[in-house]
Amino acid sequence: MFGRPAGGTFADGVSRVAYSDADIEGRRYVMELMKAGGLQPRIDPAGNIFANRPGAEPRLPPILFGSHIDSVPGGGNFDGDLGSLSALGALEALDATGMRTRHPLEIVVWAHEEGFAFGRGLACSRIVAGEITPADMNEVWNGMRRGDAIRRIGGNPDRIFEARRPKGAHHCYLELHIEQGGTLERAGVPIGVVEGIVAIDKYDAVVTGFANHAGTTPITERHDAMLAAAHLTVAVRDAVTRAPGRQVGTVGHIEVTPNSPNVIPGLARLSIELRDLSPQKLVAMMDDIRARAREIAANTQTTIEFIPAMSAAPAVASAEVQSAIERAGASLGLGTSRLPSGAGHDAQMMALLGPMGMIFVPSVAGVSHSPKELTHWEDCARGADVLLRTVLEMDKLS
Amino acid sequence: MFGRPAGGTFADGVSRVAYSDADIEGRRYVMELMKAGGLQPRIDPAGNIFANRPGAEPRLPPILFGSHIDSVPGGGNFDGDLGSLSALGALEALDATGMRTRHPLEIVVWAHEEGFAFGRGLACSRIVAGEITPADMNEVWNGMRRGDAIRRIGGNPDRIFEARRPKGAHHCYLELHIEQGGTLERAGVPIGVVEGIVAIDKYDAVVTGFANHAGTTPITERHDAMLAAAHLTVAVRDAVTRAPGRQVGTVGHIEVTPNSPNVIPGLARLSIELRDLSPQKLVAMMDDIRARAREIAANTQTTIEFIPAMSAAPAVASAEVQSAIERAGASLGLGTSRLPSGAGHDAQMMALLGPMGMIFVPSVAGVSHSPKELTHWEDCARGADVLLRTVLEMDKLS
Repeated sequence: MFGRPAGGTFADGVSRVAYSDADIEGRRYVMELMKAGGLQPRIDPAGNIFANRPGAEPRLPPILFGSHIDSVPGGGNFDGDLGSLSALGALEALDATGMRTRHPLEIVVWAHEEGFAFGRGLACSRIVAGEITPADMNEVWNGMRRGDAIRRIGGNPDRIFEARRPKGAHHCYLELHIEQGGTLERAGVPIGVVEGIVAIDKYDAVVTGFANHAGTTPITERHDAMLAAAHLTVAVRDAVTRAPGRQVGTVGHIEVTPNSPNVIPGLARLSIELRDLSPQKLVAMMDDIRARAREIAANTQTTIEFIPAMSAAPAVASAEVQSAIERAGASLGLGTSRLPSGAGHDAQMMALLGPMGMIFVPSVAGVSHSPKELTHWEDCARGADVLLRTVLEMDKLS
Repeated sequence: MFGRPAGGTFADGVSRVAYSDADIEGRRYVMELMKAGGLQPRIDPAGNIFANRPGAEPRLPPILFGSHIDSVPGGGNFDGDLGSLSALGALEALDATGMRTRHPLEIVVWAHEEGFAFGRGLACSRIVAGEITPADMNEVWNGMRRGDAIRRIGGNPDRIFEARRPKGAHHCYLELHIEQGGTLERAGVPIGVVEGIVAIDKYDAVVTGFANHAGTTPITERHDAMLAAAHLTVAVRDAVTRAPGRQVGTVGHIEVTPNSPNVIPGLARLSIELRDLSPQKLVAMMDDIRARAREIAANTQTTIEFIPAMSAAPAVASAEVQSAIERAGASLGLGTSRLPSGAGHDAQMMALLGPMGMIFVPSVAGVSHSPKELTHWEDCARGADVLLRTVLEMDKLS
């Protein structure tokens, strides 16, 4: 990838939580890199960093590409950084070869992608997509008002609505990213073509039993909320694996009351999170879970209630962009494989405005959101090369 | 039950946590009742309250009986109180009828029975049974040294070893107590004859998986510690119910790391508590659980380790005392039923020194350690009557 990202701040082992000093330092650094590459970076009212390279046909909409540089606490240096620096690298490569595209090119470093600050993710691409209300600027997190946080990274909360872009504002949006799962590595495929970003349905399951003495209460008289929760956890896995496909489902959180070794649990609350490209499949899985929960409740003398906690629609990658990525890979002699993205990305916000596509490269052992996150440099470089070629492929299309 | 326990402090809805002001107030009240009954209560160095009534044959060892008056936080007014006040009531009934026993009679109100203060229960009967070291007096709980706590209730930690009693110090030990379970109520039997106090084996199960992204990690690549813990919780119930009998087993406590809805749990720690009169049965159940755990670990790509946390031997009630209780019940026209005690009682400490037996009366809906704890007054009175008759039955035996 043009020799850059391997050095400098972005292999520094530093986590850049949105709005932290480290995040601001990283943003300053990437803007310096842009200026060194002859670009004029600008910050929109939401805090996103943009830079443009003119095209031969200025009236065509720009091809927009990039990623983010903020990270989760204890995160790695590849999630986001790779796509951001590779976008800049693509412009530098075009400069080096003197090549001019038909479409203007616009690169972006999205602010506040990770869901840690203010308990939300994709925060500033969401503003560009138009999902913003004035009240949002008054959210408080960690002692900080959201408007002030955006001001801190160079945005302007007073003009936040000016960050919105209309549908069709760009020819397409492209993002190179690490896979964060282990599918590509296991398959030995260097380039992943993202089919879309999965839909997510989240529920809280509330299991109500009756807390009682663990010594004096016979087995047949128990209303054990933990036992019901255990059966339900197994039922979630069964519902997910019953049909073929790449859907996933997770029980990641549980709270038990009173949670004492010598008391039969009277209450258990657990999270159920289901993900797949098809929202219909999520509904079918949940129907399966509900049916099984009725049996479990009857067998364990408990009640089980499901409270919807969140539902996110899927973002489908454009068929044209997927084909363009495959042609780009083929032109470089690189194998490609289609796969869904189980994680959320700014690309899903840009899918609201126009055609979107994402390029994945392998994550070693599928580890991400960890200091152990690693993508080999040759895989980073392959991804950057495919990004540039995809830009050129998309540039051919009107 | 001689009209007393229904009134006064002991139906006051006040929980008396050991060493609290309420506990001290309750102890003062019960000593006043003893004095009003012509007794001379005394406090041993461990803080236990004793009172004696002479027998016709002073060289015979005393028949010891009583219970405790301290309670768990948020506890009820029957657990312990019933047996303590019924012991006093028995002496008053003997006085009222002018009846003299062969054996001296000794009643006791044990201090600090419930396992809340200092994280231990049966604390002061344990001292009488000889299970005490000088270091124990230096334990600190809630800002209080244990020696100072004992001094607060009138004990003398400097002479703590003088509280010990030798084997054979009493003819037998008897205790009337509420069942705390629902077996007697369901069976419609007014008097339970306790076969013994169950053995308890406790383990911490540590399930180690690998925390990873709940969206990007395919099902087949997961090492889900929560899923393994769920299967293990079901396995505990299966191991307990596989064989006939009254054994119980509980998973009451779970801790999951990181316990976030969007992260596959990497670690789960859960408690396993098994109770039965037969320690061999506990070992067999645990062997069953271990065998199943090996399969679960293999199927879920996790490891499961069991750390022994506690093992308490059973205390078997004397056959002579059990028969005496049954004769006492029959003489009053009351049906009896043998059952184990799933909860711990001071009686198990006294079983170390001589023959022991316990009388249970029904708990409404099996609820205990709760403000809803209730035993109907007629059942309380039946229990008190059976206690007195059992004293007289045991008095006939040398």
